[in-house]
Amino acid sequence: MSGAATFDPRDFRQALGAFATGVTIVTACAEDGTLVGITANSFNSVSLDPPMVLWSLARNARSLPVFERASHWNVHVLANDQEAMSNRFARAGEDKFSGLELDPCASGAPLIPGCSARFQCRTAFQYEGGDHVIFVGEVIDYDRTPSPPLLYVTGGYALAARKAGAIATEAEPTDAIYSENMLGYLLGRAHYQFVAGFRRTLDEHGLSDTDFFVLSLLSVRQPLGTEEIAAHMAYTGADIGPVALQSLRARALLERDGEYGGGTGGWRLGARGGDAILHVLAAAKAVEADALEQLGPMEAVGLRNLLKRLIAVTDPGLPKLWTSPIGGEPVA
Amino acid sequence: MSGAATFDPRDFRQALGAFATGVTIVTACAEDGTLVGITANSFNSVSLDPPMVLWSLARNARSLPVFERASHWNVHVLANDQEAMSNRFARAGEDKFSGLELDPCASGAPLIPGCSARFQCRTAFQYEGGDHVIFVGEVIDYDRTPSPPLLYVTGGYALAARKAGAIATEAEPTDAIYSENMLGYLLGRAHYQFVAGFRRTLDEHGLSDTDFFVLSLLSVRQPLGTEEIAAHMAYTGADIGPVALQSLRARALLERDGEYGGGTGGWRLGARGGDAILHVLAAAKAVEADALEQLGPMEAVGLRNLLKRLIAVTDPGLPKLWTSPIGGEPVA
Repeated sequence: MSGAATFDPRDFRQALGAFATGVTIVTACAEDGTLVGITANSFNSVSLDPPMVLWSLARNARSLPVFERASHWNVHVLANDQEAMSNRFARAGEDKFSGLELDPCASGAPLIPGCSARFQCRTAFQYEGGDHVIFVGEVIDYDRTPSPPLLYVTGGYALAARKAGAIATEAEPTDAIYSENMLGYLLGRAHYQFVAGFRRTLDEHGLSDTDFFVLSLLSVRQPLGTEEIAAHMAYTGADIGPVALQSLRARALLERDGEYGGGTGGWRLGARGGDAILHVLAAAKAVEADALEQLGPMEAVGLRNLLKRLIAVTDPGLPKLWTSPIGGEPVA
Repeated sequence: MSGAATFDPRDFRQALGAFATGVTIVTACAEDGTLVGITANSFNSVSLDPPMVLWSLARNARSLPVFERASHWNVHVLANDQEAMSNRFARAGEDKFSGLELDPCASGAPLIPGCSARFQCRTAFQYEGGDHVIFVGEVIDYDRTPSPPLLYVTGGYALAARKAGAIATEAEPTDAIYSENMLGYLLGRAHYQFVAGFRRTLDEHGLSDTDFFVLSLLSVRQPLGTEEIAAHMAYTGADIGPVALQSLRARALLERDGEYGGGTGGWRLGARGGDAILHVLAAAKAVEADALEQLGPMEAVGLRNLLKRLIAVTDPGLPKLWTSPIGGEPVA
């Protein structure tokens, strides 16, 4: 395609969306005391000495007159858990600051808490930029937190994770039967290496992987019937029938609850089972804490996010263990 | 902290780094035909009508005079596999275009292939921005590809993944024994749901999960000795000793290789084993293709990246199967 006037706005916007950005909210205080704020991803750093940043605002934005007259404005780089805040300030026509607790700010411009970073600025320049005005500000104060930032990429919110060198995106030979880029391999290895981190604790309590799954399930919700347990465990490929459960009972890992299911009976953690699962889950938490500390906070959020998305697209329709009652009672 | 002059440059840069960006290379052609290019993350969109973008360049950059006089320049939004390209153009003092194949460009400015998006611009404005010059260009042509972009966040390269709604970052009650945010739960569920997608194929060939692991291993490298196989499999918790391997042999899944290990003998895929693993891996690839299509290309790259990083930090020191010979021969 060629010739500026002929661009399809939607297609052009999508091309611009290939450039990832953080998400900011820029705020100011009008002369009459009205607070204004708008979500913008057009922010960027400009200068280190003097410290300067810029962002741009549409000429048709309702808050433009306030920003044009404001001597000061604040830029808030949003954290990964501030998606709702971003949406609130992206919409027009409501009191965006309603119910919002603000931090004190010398310039009078609103200062929103909970962000990854904040820059308090004094207007330095306003420049023409087509249908936008470019605001350049001198940074007079700033602060930051360790919160991983919220991202905006190709038209949607996203999270970032540090790139693991060249291995992350290396080309995979198309004729390889089985390669180390295969998702199944990576998932299996990640899972079993993780479990290996607390296998000693499993062994100390004489638990197989399958025993562990059953006890974990009942640690969240009990009692559960034989078929409910089987329905939860089928996707692991383990055969959890009445015989297997009786065997767990014989080892005092489970006990029967004769009242459950209108007298058909159910299963609860037994004395040894309750003790064992507490120890195993504590060991698993220690493995998790160690791994996530090495990965970093941004990657911890990103890994959980992607595993949840993968689980959602491969979900065979498992009963929801935590959010929707399937039987039994949530364990406090 | 307060007062612009007192900022620690390093700390200020780190605060600015909380704002995630893509990575671009901006290029131009000098009057004498010299090509210049520089890595910049100060790019952003400005205007849709007319279509305009901006970026800023340090006043002390060697290429500044060329960009100041250039009527045209090209912005390249780098793809996730262009980290080396980013590094090449971030360094000073070498012929950055040496050996680089360029696409034809009407303006004469270098046009680098393989990017997520490219914007060909005509200089519209040059503005003062402290120790930088802000270049605003009118976009006269652009193109894009589906390649997920490279990111720069908190001082390093990163990858983005679409955020899975509020679940990704929801607060976890600190007193929960076992929650759906636990990494061990997410890894296990993701792994077993993935395997469940081709369990029918495993069943058709009469393979347990452990059988599958052994056959997978030998599909990459064979023959292997009994102890080599055990060393590779120990982290899964499966007990793969001589007895288990003999049982696989009895089912024609494996066969002995008497020559291996100076006569101590090793194991190869048997007739049924070779056939079975081909079918199972094909089914696993189909599950992978389906899941990654639903997740999207950006998430596919991001998930592999994070799983590799997790595997690296939890690695008990497994022999390297693909890259470093541990015995046997790589399977073509």
